[in-house]
Amino acid sequence: MILHSCEKKNSEKPILNSSTRDFAQYVNPFIGTSKMGHVFPGATAPFGMVQLSPQTNFEIMFTKDGKYNSKTYEYCAGYQHRDSIIIGFSHTNLSGTGHSDLGDFLVMPTTGELVLEPLLTKDNTKGFYSTFSHHKEEASPGYYKVDLDSYGIKAELTASKRVGFHQYTFPKSDNSHIILDMIYNVYHYNNKNVWTFIRVENDSLITGYRQTKGWARTKKVFFAMAFSKAFKSYGHKKQDDIIYDGFYRRFNQENNFPEMAGKNIQAYFNFDTEMDEKIKIKFALSSVSTAGALRNLEAEIPHWNFNKTKTETKQLWNKELSKIEVKTINEADKITFYTALYHTNLSPIIYEDVDGQYRGLDQNIYSSDNFVNYTVFSLWDTYRALHPLFNIIQTKRNNNMIKSMLAHHDQSVHHMLPIWSHYANENWCMIGYHATSVIADAIVKNVGDFDQERALQASVNTANVRYFDGIGDYIDYKYVPDDKSHSSVSKTLEYAYDDWCIAQIAMRVGNTQTEKEFRKRSEYYHNVYDLKTGYMRPKLADGSFRKNFDPMDTHGQGFIEGNAWNYGLYVPQNIDKMIEMMGGKEYFSQHLDSLFTMQIDDKFIDQHEDITRDGIIGNYVHGNEPGHHIPYLYNWTGKPYKTQARVRMIMETMYGPTVDGLCGNDDAGQMSAWYIFSSLGFYPVTPGSQDYALGSPLVKEAIIHLDNGKTLTITTKNQRKENVYVNKVIVNGATLEGTILSHQDLINGGKIVFEMSNKPRILK
Amino acid sequence: MILHSCEKKNSEKPILNSSTRDFAQYVNPFIGTSKMGHVFPGATAPFGMVQLSPQTNFEIMFTKDGKYNSKTYEYCAGYQHRDSIIIGFSHTNLSGTGHSDLGDFLVMPTTGELVLEPLLTKDNTKGFYSTFSHHKEEASPGYYKVDLDSYGIKAELTASKRVGFHQYTFPKSDNSHIILDMIYNVYHYNNKNVWTFIRVENDSLITGYRQTKGWARTKKVFFAMAFSKAFKSYGHKKQDDIIYDGFYRRFNQENNFPEMAGKNIQAYFNFDTEMDEKIKIKFALSSVSTAGALRNLEAEIPHWNFNKTKTETKQLWNKELSKIEVKTINEADKITFYTALYHTNLSPIIYEDVDGQYRGLDQNIYSSDNFVNYTVFSLWDTYRALHPLFNIIQTKRNNNMIKSMLAHHDQSVHHMLPIWSHYANENWCMIGYHATSVIADAIVKNVGDFDQERALQASVNTANVRYFDGIGDYIDYKYVPDDKSHSSVSKTLEYAYDDWCIAQIAMRVGNTQTEKEFRKRSEYYHNVYDLKTGYMRPKLADGSFRKNFDPMDTHGQGFIEGNAWNYGLYVPQNIDKMIEMMGGKEYFSQHLDSLFTMQIDDKFIDQHEDITRDGIIGNYVHGNEPGHHIPYLYNWTGKPYKTQARVRMIMETMYGPTVDGLCGNDDAGQMSAWYIFSSLGFYPVTPGSQDYALGSPLVKEAIIHLDNGKTLTITTKNQRKENVYVNKVIVNGATLEGTILSHQDLINGGKIVFEMSNKPRILK
Repeated sequence: MILHSCEKKNSEKPILNSSTRDFAQYVNPFIGTSKMGHVFPGATAPFGMVQLSPQTNFEIMFTKDGKYNSKTYEYCAGYQHRDSIIIGFSHTNLSGTGHSDLGDFLVMPTTGELVLEPLLTKDNTKGFYSTFSHHKEEASPGYYKVDLDSYGIKAELTASKRVGFHQYTFPKSDNSHIILDMIYNVYHYNNKNVWTFIRVENDSLITGYRQTKGWARTKKVFFAMAFSKAFKSYGHKKQDDIIYDGFYRRFNQENNFPEMAGKNIQAYFNFDTEMDEKIKIKFALSSVSTAGALRNLEAEIPHWNFNKTKTETKQLWNKELSKIEVKTINEADKITFYTALYHTNLSPIIYEDVDGQYRGLDQNIYSSDNFVNYTVFSLWDTYRALHPLFNIIQTKRNNNMIKSMLAHHDQSVHHMLPIWSHYANENWCMIGYHATSVIADAIVKNVGDFDQERALQASVNTANVRYFDGIGDYIDYKYVPDDKSHSSVSKTLEYAYDDWCIAQIAMRVGNTQTEKEFRKRSEYYHNVYDLKTGYMRPKLADGSFRKNFDPMDTHGQGFIEGNAWNYGLYVPQNIDKMIEMMGGKEYFSQHLDSLFTMQIDDKFIDQHEDITRDGIIGNYVHGNEPGHHIPYLYNWTGKPYKTQARVRMIMETMYGPTVDGLCGNDDAGQMSAWYIFSSLGFYPVTPGSQDYALGSPLVKEAIIHLDNGKTLTITTKNQRKENVYVNKVIVNGATLEGTILSHQDLINGGKIVFEMSNKPRILK
Repeated sequence: MILHSCEKKNSEKPILNSSTRDFAQYVNPFIGTSKMGHVFPGATAPFGMVQLSPQTNFEIMFTKDGKYNSKTYEYCAGYQHRDSIIIGFSHTNLSGTGHSDLGDFLVMPTTGELVLEPLLTKDNTKGFYSTFSHHKEEASPGYYKVDLDSYGIKAELTASKRVGFHQYTFPKSDNSHIILDMIYNVYHYNNKNVWTFIRVENDSLITGYRQTKGWARTKKVFFAMAFSKAFKSYGHKKQDDIIYDGFYRRFNQENNFPEMAGKNIQAYFNFDTEMDEKIKIKFALSSVSTAGALRNLEAEIPHWNFNKTKTETKQLWNKELSKIEVKTINEADKITFYTALYHTNLSPIIYEDVDGQYRGLDQNIYSSDNFVNYTVFSLWDTYRALHPLFNIIQTKRNNNMIKSMLAHHDQSVHHMLPIWSHYANENWCMIGYHATSVIADAIVKNVGDFDQERALQASVNTANVRYFDGIGDYIDYKYVPDDKSHSSVSKTLEYAYDDWCIAQIAMRVGNTQTEKEFRKRSEYYHNVYDLKTGYMRPKLADGSFRKNFDPMDTHGQGFIEGNAWNYGLYVPQNIDKMIEMMGGKEYFSQHLDSLFTMQIDDKFIDQHEDITRDGIIGNYVHGNEPGHHIPYLYNWTGKPYKTQARVRMIMETMYGPTVDGLCGNDDAGQMSAWYIFSSLGFYPVTPGSQDYALGSPLVKEAIIHLDNGKTLTITTKNQRKENVYVNKVIVNGATLEGTILSHQDLINGGKIVFEMSNKPRILK
């Protein structure tokens, strides 16, 4: 089951002193670019609006007959490490998501005869792609470099928050080109476009926009593209089936005509280049307008010094990465750790222009007067550990993210908080209304200055949208009836947890009535528990449990992306009660043992989905989110040493410093956030509470620079690979009783010491 | 050749006293809705952004095999008087253009089973159209009414500048519907849409937008639609071929789900209605955003009083129509006159929100701080007489229109003034750069406070865009070579005239160098005159005239929408020289006689185009613009009486108070403006000069209320149908010498007396 071949070195460097603070050196952006990590290796600033990254081996995306190829799932971030060709560099990419979109504005430099087909021309000759090899490829935070072997061009990329910066070193040629392909989408080449529009403002500045209909249904991205050198000529090709093009065809508009529009457009810009001549491109994005993109361009990178931007972005990265300084047992762990930390700083992304204007959910333009607007909220994933991590080291951002969610609510015609906020769209991906968890977790941890009453109202509104995904039935039946809604058990469990979060918010706000109402709803998980089989089980509207129930099957059994075994243990709001309900501590502990050790039949492993193919331990799936809390549940059974061994095992086998070092989709940082928490020795099993469940730290030492100016130091005694057991935890000099650390234990700074051993000792 | 059956009555009413001022009663919006007038009968305010009008008999638009039906040309304004069915009421319609677009947001009330196909369902039953009959139809300025016989619904429409107001009187039904069809376009049902988007904000308010790719290539119109009564339920149907609709299909989004988006959407809203219950709709437009549309809605019609808006808009119309008070020989002429005046007040249209925000040519949002922004500039048509008419009775608007053109220039990536400004698009329709004429005419007549130096620079920029439509060749060769460009002679003639206009602007601004340069260019018409044949004739790049030249043919002979006979007399900037060049006054006079009297072979009459089918007198075509000045050219041959007879003949035969009372496309008011001028006894043969050529007034008396507060009275002596000759013209007591009236003669007010006779008397 351990798919990555992690070559772990035993070398260990002393921790950096804080004057150097070059933590970026430990980040390897290629980690997770193989198989199902779905991360991109390209250049981006922390939480940046631009993700400028190579797009590879596009040919497998369609089968010969033009049909969708299921392998496209591997290309959610446009890149697979095994590939050998690049078709260009695009400016927007999702990090680690389980579904694809974006890829806006593919730029590709070429030489020789102009070719506009990406892979194969109509004459069966080579398209505009280039071959490349990994030994001439390099990536670090905010920087990417590759040799485009087909053209003898060296490509370098960096990015500020809103501007991608390209630097192409050309060979001598009187036939050099830069192609701006407006057709390419991750991962459909030709079927997401709604409209594209380009203006050649002068001989070295382009503006335009694209609207696509993909995962985000009504998505508009505007751009401004500045060249360091005037092009000698330019043109475009429209790949549309023209039904009507009227007067636009009256005179030649294909060559050197500065206005282009259509569904599928490719523009190209021609140059004479000297040997080793650099042509640079600054490519700014905006959700608002081309005028907004131009303002972003001018404000963020007013110069042509590529290295200056590269250095500044690296500094931004070091600022974020230095928030946790770790010593590790070996160098490899440090690379894994800082790359994970890097991955937790890629999304949500900033989604506003330098002047604060942004596109709202209703497609109107808003101004973020008192906050910074963010998008790409993959909340079903990220409420679990990513936002709790932000509540320790990114409190300002998390506050802005919650304000962004509240703005989303206000702009929502449904009066709903985001489910999956996606470039001024709600893409409705996955279930639950977990924004309420993010809000509750922040309120409980005293993070942010957002309006808590408004946040409560928004949460209550969201939880009462009857037409949304079975909520009406959930309210009426006190569970989601399986004959009325798909994924009925998963929904019931998650709604109940989210309702508990709303109760927490109501309690803090002092709204007793609402607290009571939602506490009641938070207990509905009971209603899908089948005492007879001992599983959470789909229940019909008539009150009977569904027949033909297979707790092993991940399809059509009332769960989404999981089965009753690995999704049915989801009652984070009341774990003690769940365990009691399910037969008590001992029984539950054995159930967990079985989960982690059972042999599962091949028929239950879907070869096309990472959720069961990779990242699986017995019947436990670490490659997907529903079970991320499960390894920590042993703590509630009186056997915390089993949690300790299991989480160390997961860290060692499911993560690593290699290209296949992520066992499943990173899911916008959730997989990596799990690793960060677990490496530090604790995990937020119940976001919305102050509690962290103890695990087993992987680091030797960690210095966490908290946003409140305080410092928390985590140290270990006897830390070794084999010493996975925690015999004692000393918090600021006092021995910790039990297996729960409180947020207060962390946030006031101080020192936590873990005493490690190769033998379990039961903490009570 | 006289196609309309004008039933002219001899009844004559006394002119209204100015306290009543109900000139709207003389307007018949159905005039020109038959055959090729291309006007719409619906409700609109003067120059309003909303044109709310019925869309008829859609079925002929496609042949059985789905191919484009050439008869669709008749449907440029969505309505043909011969039709018997209405499929709905749309909010944007062009007036009189020779090409189609718009038709945004078709609304149709129905009862009974909901049907969403407009004509025929898949089961071969009736679509949602209704039959109607003209005797239950009524139209007046700002108001339209029709009985929808299929449903027993009375439909009434009115409009403020930016808001359409519907009032539907329903029968009793528990199955009443209002359909909002976002698919319909004039005149393609299904192939102009790029994207549509709807939000159901609450139970009686909808917002949304549509982007289309039609004559305007990147056109976006936003709306807000308020219902006077809450709908009981609603839904939508997406007619797209879904390639990917991802998570949007996870739960039912077709019924009562308030967010809809896709390429082709139809929404519907269901009601219970009592007998004679009125459901009203306020439908606001914006080029900016749905927020802008909402602001327009609230600002312009904050109430639900249909009659109040109807009355206010009628008052707006009477304000415009009362600028010229006429007495006519008979009632019919008054109807024709005021309907023509009405038609000259339909476009250009206001194109900004109540707060001054509008969408610019680059798709960015601008604020019109010091002007009112207009669009729909059909300049190849309207520079001739419509804008000169504005320089007498709409000077403030014309000033704003010129400022709109200058904003267009500033937003143009080509740095060009508009050719055909079309909803934040340049549609490139027809030739020349006649915005320069509109500017020159205003400057020469001291109209407006726009920046004249900026206007000169914009004009010069426009005239030097080498890649546009042969301008580079025109500059290099001093004519447009026919082997390098289509319509080479028409372009040479029009560019030369436009260049003369630029010289006039330069002269006023005091830029001698530019004046000299463009005076030189204004003489290039010489270079396409073939002394040997006596025609303007296509010339090749090698300097030789093209062989195989047929001066009768309207296709491929160097002219656009005309032939050498009727397009070859276009040198308005120097008519004396043209006549001299062409053989002198006597010869030219005979040439004109031939033009108006010759028999032309059927093969030269294109049955599909109004330009040669209707509105033809000999070889003269009044149904299209290139010859509109020609009837007045006799004045320069010493035979003004021939002009007098001819223009009276044209007014009598080519215009009339019947549905087929326009002999060709009204062309955004140009055909009607010709009639207004000619009715008053003079015509601006050379816009950009102060001169008007004398004709023969049709009115008995006209009182023109000038924008400067002065009043010009035109009276006739011995005015009768047969007294078409002008024996004397007395301007403020002094007999006019010659056949030219100066703008000064008009603009200072006073009195002009025409002495009419049935015998010609030669004015010198």
